[in-house]
Amino acid sequence: MFKEFQNLINQSYPNLYKQRTLIAVSGGIDSMVLLHLMHKANLNLAVAHCNFTLRGEESDAEEIFVKETVADYDYEFFVERFPTQSYAAEKGLNTQLAARELRYAWFNHLAELHNFDHIAVAHHANDKIETFLINLSRGTGIDGLSGIPEKNQKIIRPLLPFSRAQITAYAKENNIDWKEDSSNSSDKYIRNKIRHHIVPILEELHPNFLNNFLQTQEFLSDTSQIVAKQVEELKSILFIKEDGLIKIPVQQLKVLHPLRTYLYELFKDYNFTNWDDIGHLLDAMSGKAVYSKTHELSKDRSFLILRKIPLKLNTEFIYEKLSETIHDPIHLNVTKVTEIEEKDANTIYVDAEKLNLPLIVRKWHTGDYFHPFGMKGKKKVSKFFKDEKFSLPEKETQWILLSQDQIVWIIGKRADQRFAVSPKTTSILKIQLQP
Amino acid sequence: MFKEFQNLINQSYPNLYKQRTLIAVSGGIDSMVLLHLMHKANLNLAVAHCNFTLRGEESDAEEIFVKETVADYDYEFFVERFPTQSYAAEKGLNTQLAARELRYAWFNHLAELHNFDHIAVAHHANDKIETFLINLSRGTGIDGLSGIPEKNQKIIRPLLPFSRAQITAYAKENNIDWKEDSSNSSDKYIRNKIRHHIVPILEELHPNFLNNFLQTQEFLSDTSQIVAKQVEELKSILFIKEDGLIKIPVQQLKVLHPLRTYLYELFKDYNFTNWDDIGHLLDAMSGKAVYSKTHELSKDRSFLILRKIPLKLNTEFIYEKLSETIHDPIHLNVTKVTEIEEKDANTIYVDAEKLNLPLIVRKWHTGDYFHPFGMKGKKKVSKFFKDEKFSLPEKETQWILLSQDQIVWIIGKRADQRFAVSPKTTSILKIQLQP
Repeated sequence: MFKEFQNLINQSYPNLYKQRTLIAVSGGIDSMVLLHLMHKANLNLAVAHCNFTLRGEESDAEEIFVKETVADYDYEFFVERFPTQSYAAEKGLNTQLAARELRYAWFNHLAELHNFDHIAVAHHANDKIETFLINLSRGTGIDGLSGIPEKNQKIIRPLLPFSRAQITAYAKENNIDWKEDSSNSSDKYIRNKIRHHIVPILEELHPNFLNNFLQTQEFLSDTSQIVAKQVEELKSILFIKEDGLIKIPVQQLKVLHPLRTYLYELFKDYNFTNWDDIGHLLDAMSGKAVYSKTHELSKDRSFLILRKIPLKLNTEFIYEKLSETIHDPIHLNVTKVTEIEEKDANTIYVDAEKLNLPLIVRKWHTGDYFHPFGMKGKKKVSKFFKDEKFSLPEKETQWILLSQDQIVWIIGKRADQRFAVSPKTTSILKIQLQP
Repeated sequence: MFKEFQNLINQSYPNLYKQRTLIAVSGGIDSMVLLHLMHKANLNLAVAHCNFTLRGEESDAEEIFVKETVADYDYEFFVERFPTQSYAAEKGLNTQLAARELRYAWFNHLAELHNFDHIAVAHHANDKIETFLINLSRGTGIDGLSGIPEKNQKIIRPLLPFSRAQITAYAKENNIDWKEDSSNSSDKYIRNKIRHHIVPILEELHPNFLNNFLQTQEFLSDTSQIVAKQVEELKSILFIKEDGLIKIPVQQLKVLHPLRTYLYELFKDYNFTNWDDIGHLLDAMSGKAVYSKTHELSKDRSFLILRKIPLKLNTEFIYEKLSETIHDPIHLNVTKVTEIEEKDANTIYVDAEKLNLPLIVRKWHTGDYFHPFGMKGKKKVSKFFKDEKFSLPEKETQWILLSQDQIVWIIGKRADQRFAVSPKTTSILKIQLQP
């Protein structure tokens, strides 16, 4: 298997040899094999391990196991303990989804901070069939059946062409140790059902099932690309941009066939999912509208009008990366610097290591407090506003920058002490409000 | 369920009320329920039952069961006993495929002969998921995942929107009797595995699995239509028709992306299935060619040349219907007549009931014999040629018409006695060689 892995790297990821890769290692068989293969391929690596603190001692034992393995390899090691349950409860997510959000936000944060070019995760071919069948059971379109991408921004999945059987055999041959995750979360449960009960029967139906499936999925993925290209061409004809909104002639939509699939494809990028509603809109009276979480689509005589939903006071602008620029609702430049430069009300310097993603920009909420820079202890934002003699309109137009739920900056007014640069700081971010 | 069935007929098959439908009834629960529903809907019906003689007494008991049920309903009844095993052995097919060929050929034959407008078969929603998973295990493209068509020429499938659970419930409520097919053929075996072991788990994963799946399949079917339309447009641009062949500029093929899926879609109607071979042809030297069972695709400098494979001496031209016209390799008009009209060497009259599909036109094979019209007993074709003083080129250019493996006509020379019109004949076909 190593030879095939090496061929894959040479063909699909030739840059890996000169660039830096962060591998996500849970301690399970897949990621331990990935680590072994990438190490053997002599790549420039570091390892990240998420401790989701979901299984008490077992989680901690995994953390120690990975840490010790990585020490043997002598790679840089990052570990983070996440309060997954409380994050999930707070966000109204199931545990799996919460863990995924936390994991990828942290990986991207590490990659930004330490200049990793790639983040390698250990998905393999059997994950594709499992995802395919889960999506099939929930209902999906061709996109949901077209597989897991090999590359997606910084994320790479070099085990994707290999089956679980190949990975297991490689682990055995190379005496690779791993920890079996005992978790029985709903997602694991579903995947185990598919793995143990459905896939073996499909393999009975056709001994070459997995390969046939993978080829089928490549066909679907190609077909989906063909459709996407056609839909883009169609958009360039039908979507007329005008003053920050888009006008679409209803008559030209009506002649599309099959209509509902065209409507789905044309509007999915604007977060619309219900083609029926859009279908009804074609024949509705002027003034009728349907909404996605980000957009409004309304009927105006012979046109549909597509526009972003105007801001509401309680809107949060969420940034999942330590990005160069925050552009909505205000413009903040975020740059890495080696030392503190000029200081003014529109600039702060923070310790990048102390920030947690996502960064959020929003208005003030009742109950908000922060640790004003240069002071000991915390202060309610409402008290700060009062002390600073803010008028009501001033309060309502004041933007606040947060790191997860902690205030980093009453923007343009006062920074927070908790994120301040200290003698121990190794990575400084300069955040500057642009006029 | 009857109300939904009636709505479906009104919406999708409104012509059924004034036209004639032949229902295929095996005696199993699905076809017995279909018969009950179509009877209750007051349609103009007749029933066909295939006895595939695969399960001895059980097969015969089913035949009698269906015959008696149909007698109660007072519908016209057709039954045919097929030597399925020997047909399968002869054609090198598995039993299921052989039975399917025989069944549909006979249904179409009956429909032509007795002027049925539709042939109703009892496929239902669960058949769709089974077919989907079988095709998935064997490898397929989007077409193989897009479902079973509701209409296909004369075949209609009015149970397709209904689930097995609905059909079973309807049979119970209406005290419908049926015969359980004990057969354990490979196809049944596969379908049973899927039915009993895979689908229940998928239903555990999502209680609304079947509906979600059906909706997904409709999406795939729509997507497939979008691609088909685009490929037709592409063909109208790229495929240049010239003197019975098609020229396709190689450069314009090469820029297509994703290439292999475009190549597959562009050439599938010409029976090419291996896009890799076609892909290699794009860069091959002039003169290289690849073949499907019907077509040759060759490289000629900057073009691919697509043409029908020229006739070989052993080519058989197969006609699956009692069609109006046979056009290859010679032109035979086939028309229904009520009595024998003019007679000449280029015209014969046959008893349509005695013909079996497929009709075949081919050259003479060593060992062929027939029953010359007006004679008692059979004669070797080679002996006939000798007696008629055929030259070698005359033997080699002589075409013969067969009904399955029986000679109907040494075309333009002598008819066969076995298919001759007799006083009992109720349906006469006139077959006339066009110059």
